[in-house]
Amino acid sequence: MTEQKQLRLGAFMRPVSLHTGAWRYPGAYPDANFNFKHIKSFAQKLEAAKFDAFFMADHLAVLNMPVEALKRSHTVTSFEPFTLLSALAAVTEKIGLVATASTTFDQPYHIARRFASLDHISEGRAGWNIVTTSNPDAALNFGLDEHVEHDERYHRAREFYDVVTGLWDSFADDAFIRDVESGIFFDPEKMHVLAHKGESLSVRGPLNIARTPQGWPVIVQAGQSEPGRQLAAETAEVVFAAPRDLEGAKSLYADIKGRMQAIGRNRDHLKILPAAFVIVGDTVEDARAKRAKLDSLVHYDSALASLSISLGHDASGFDPDGPLPEIPETNASKSSREQVIRLAEKENLTVRQLAQRLGGYGGLAFVGTPQTIADEMEQWLFEEGSDGFNVVFPFLPQGLDDVTDRLVPELQRRGLFRRDYEGTTLRDHLGLPRPENRFFAQVAQAAQ
Amino acid sequence: MTEQKQLRLGAFMRPVSLHTGAWRYPGAYPDANFNFKHIKSFAQKLEAAKFDAFFMADHLAVLNMPVEALKRSHTVTSFEPFTLLSALAAVTEKIGLVATASTTFDQPYHIARRFASLDHISEGRAGWNIVTTSNPDAALNFGLDEHVEHDERYHRAREFYDVVTGLWDSFADDAFIRDVESGIFFDPEKMHVLAHKGESLSVRGPLNIARTPQGWPVIVQAGQSEPGRQLAAETAEVVFAAPRDLEGAKSLYADIKGRMQAIGRNRDHLKILPAAFVIVGDTVEDARAKRAKLDSLVHYDSALASLSISLGHDASGFDPDGPLPEIPETNASKSSREQVIRLAEKENLTVRQLAQRLGGYGGLAFVGTPQTIADEMEQWLFEEGSDGFNVVFPFLPQGLDDVTDRLVPELQRRGLFRRDYEGTTLRDHLGLPRPENRFFAQVAQAAQ
Ligand SMILES: Cc1cc2nc3c(=O)[nH]c(=O)nc-3n(C[C@H](O)[C@H](O)[C@H](O)COP(=O)(O)O)c2cc1C
Ligand SMILES: Cc1cc2nc3c(=O)[nH]c(=O)nc-3n(C[C@H](O)[C@H](O)[C@H](O)COP(=O)(O)O)c2cc1C
Repeated sequence: MTEQKQLRLGAFMRPVSLHTGAWRYPGAYPDANFNFKHIKSFAQKLEAAKFDAFFMADHLAVLNMPVEALKRSHTVTSFEPFTLLSALAAVTEKIGLVATASTTFDQPYHIARRFASLDHISEGRAGWNIVTTSNPDAALNFGLDEHVEHDERYHRAREFYDVVTGLWDSFADDAFIRDVESGIFFDPEKMHVLAHKGESLSVRGPLNIARTPQGWPVIVQAGQSEPGRQLAAETAEVVFAAPRDLEGAKSLYADIKGRMQAIGRNRDHLKILPAAFVIVGDTVEDARAKRAKLDSLVHYDSALASLSISLGHDASGFDPDGPLPEIPETNASKSSREQVIRLAEKENLTVRQLAQRLGGYGGLAFVGTPQTIADEMEQWLFEEGSDGFNVVFPFLPQGLDDVTDRLVPELQRRGLFRRDYEGTTLRDHLGLPRPENRFFAQVAQAAQ
Repeated sequence: MTEQKQLRLGAFMRPVSLHTGAWRYPGAYPDANFNFKHIKSFAQKLEAAKFDAFFMADHLAVLNMPVEALKRSHTVTSFEPFTLLSALAAVTEKIGLVATASTTFDQPYHIARRFASLDHISEGRAGWNIVTTSNPDAALNFGLDEHVEHDERYHRAREFYDVVTGLWDSFADDAFIRDVESGIFFDPEKMHVLAHKGESLSVRGPLNIARTPQGWPVIVQAGQSEPGRQLAAETAEVVFAAPRDLEGAKSLYADIKGRMQAIGRNRDHLKILPAAFVIVGDTVEDARAKRAKLDSLVHYDSALASLSISLGHDASGFDPDGPLPEIPETNASKSSREQVIRLAEKENLTVRQLAQRLGGYGGLAFVGTPQTIADEMEQWLFEEGSDGFNVVFPFLPQGLDDVTDRLVPELQRRGLFRRDYEGTTLRDHLGLPRPENRFFAQVAQAAQ
């Protein structure tokens, strides 16, 4: 019996929709991004649909955009990931809970402890999306006058990872014996003091929390640069990617899995999940109409800014209702401009429609019926464009219900997605091994 | 109608019992300190008994003690406060949730955000116990070779408080209008950029989260030193005190409330809650027997260390089953030695019993029947020794059930404690005002 390849599905939930017009869609909850009761119901629906994980992005500043765009953005007020995911841990049972945390603006002792605590509270469902934080405004909230340089950020990130995973190994899995008779609570021979002194960090340890159900929470990475890909190949178990199309996805997939093999890691021990915007309709036309409606809710001011950036040319003088005019060459990114021009031609978009597309959600999108979307996902999986997807919902709750109630059953019917959870931890869902403790021999059955 | 003075009751829940023998008590849950299901059931019982708050202490290192004592301590593995309290927020409705966070080893942007997020998720039940962290081992986990000096810690703490509360005021209460029609999510006129540049901290802001249900989470302080008391008088709304007896309590109470008046604060806007160890029995003798049984579970090694420290004299040569011998004067704290000698005489304790008392829980204790304990609490309340107590449980679950099922009804019968919550927020429970936003005029009814 050969096992069929299966998709892994995460849900991109901060913001609950990345589309900037989402909160205005007819029937949407305008406060969905910041209403715990709503978010709880989304998590429970995603769990009922057997999603692998609920993913919280994170930013350490109000996003830097002109005030005209900012005041229209539903991202300004959000829950902090650890508090939100811990609350969700108490009202869900199986779904993985992935929080983003920055290696540039936090301390490894805090990060190690919080993820360990979340992994214990959730009984093995935590994941850490390691980011180095690219928004320069974050630095200003943490006592710095300017941003930490890219290379330095990645250098610290690598060391930070070593320290955090070292702290997670502070205790053997069977250190806590709690022998009431003898009065011994834990075996001090099974406690390790890390005593790390490196280039960027100096941390003694031990961590004041037991080793976690998963050994280590699942390691996630989303960096796209050269050092970002290398960090992923060395450390990550999940990569959140952002390819534009299947071609770009295949090349990223081959690149990262190749880097893994080069350093002796098993390719299957890392799952690549591109972010994918999904709109389900009764027909392809119906789905496209939903998208057009949604895009039309992006204010033209914000939309124009996005279009101008992509073109490397001020678009504010263009006729909004005409086609995209000829644009002189500039020294802005040529590939980005050409992509935009191609998109306008292919879908026959006016300047306004094009601008609103880019200002709403410009990334990879699957827009169609459950069948056409399942076809595309299947192709990506079998052609090694990805191991699954991190689904971006167009609007909530309806756009999420369409995925869980219509797309997921189609994927299940095809044997591409589980019908029930087979294990209890996020590692179980993703088919990832439990890491050994680097300081202590493995025990057959954790006593803790 | 004059309102009767009422007790405020908090529960000291990290560790769930401060008594080092607690986990070995017959019928106790040995893992109660680190079992989410147990802690959840304790929080729900405390809420059913109408407690004001569930309090999590916090330490940023494994507590520094000799390994012989450490291996017997149930404090080594604990949940991190934000993850635990957020999880509890999702499974309780009324009880306040107070987390400890350090101003020495964290960043104001993180702290402001997490408490704001917890206050939103819990719908107004968060409190922040501000500590400067006295354990020098913590410094070693945060890149320092030695501890930050006491004065410098308090100096930073005062500035940290200003920054955090300033960040909490980043948005007016009615900033988020979410007008679907016009597409305006929030009013940028109602956002304030803090742009703090002080001696220890530089933080721009704004915070990326709306102003919270309580305006600010409740501010708690537990420092005992001169700068600690002054910080409390200037900023705190609850003080966790640790007096040994009513006399000491009255003098602390008068001191802190006097300092408040000196700077023009209303005395009623700060509640002083000493930590109180409570053992309820059918008779006073029965309660004392429970305590003796509990103390006997403290290992003599740990107990001797505590006795030696209190006496300023190595006690390991003493006959464990004899009375405390004469001890030559040393230059250790005279008052501490005399207190120990008086305790041994008053309760007629052997060296072993004395050592185990000090090694178990040496602070303020109420040991008796519901009636005698209510008498004592009433006296403390009416003589201005305190505004209530932060209850320390002897062992769990029974010692907690004895308080909620037997002591609380007696306090309610006397009109000393509420029979039901009258409001929904921690500020409501404690009778504290909602702070105004320093940057925006108050609105009659928060739209957010
Ligand atoms: C799907 C996806 C999710 C991301 N989530 C976050 C996030 O939550 N917080 C963050 O600061 N950066 C996030 N990033 C940004 C990346 O961490 C990274 O900074 C960015 O891709 C630039 O890569 P580089 O720093 O390697 O050049 C995300 C990127 C992708 C593709
Ligand atoms: C009831 C009570 C609870 C406390 N909880 C904590 C705590 O959770 N974490 C901590 O680092 N210190 C805690 N402390 C210690 C105080 O914050 C403070 O450091 C200590 O009382 C010494 O005071 P000083 O620093 O003003 O000299 C607590 C003190 C008391 C009395």
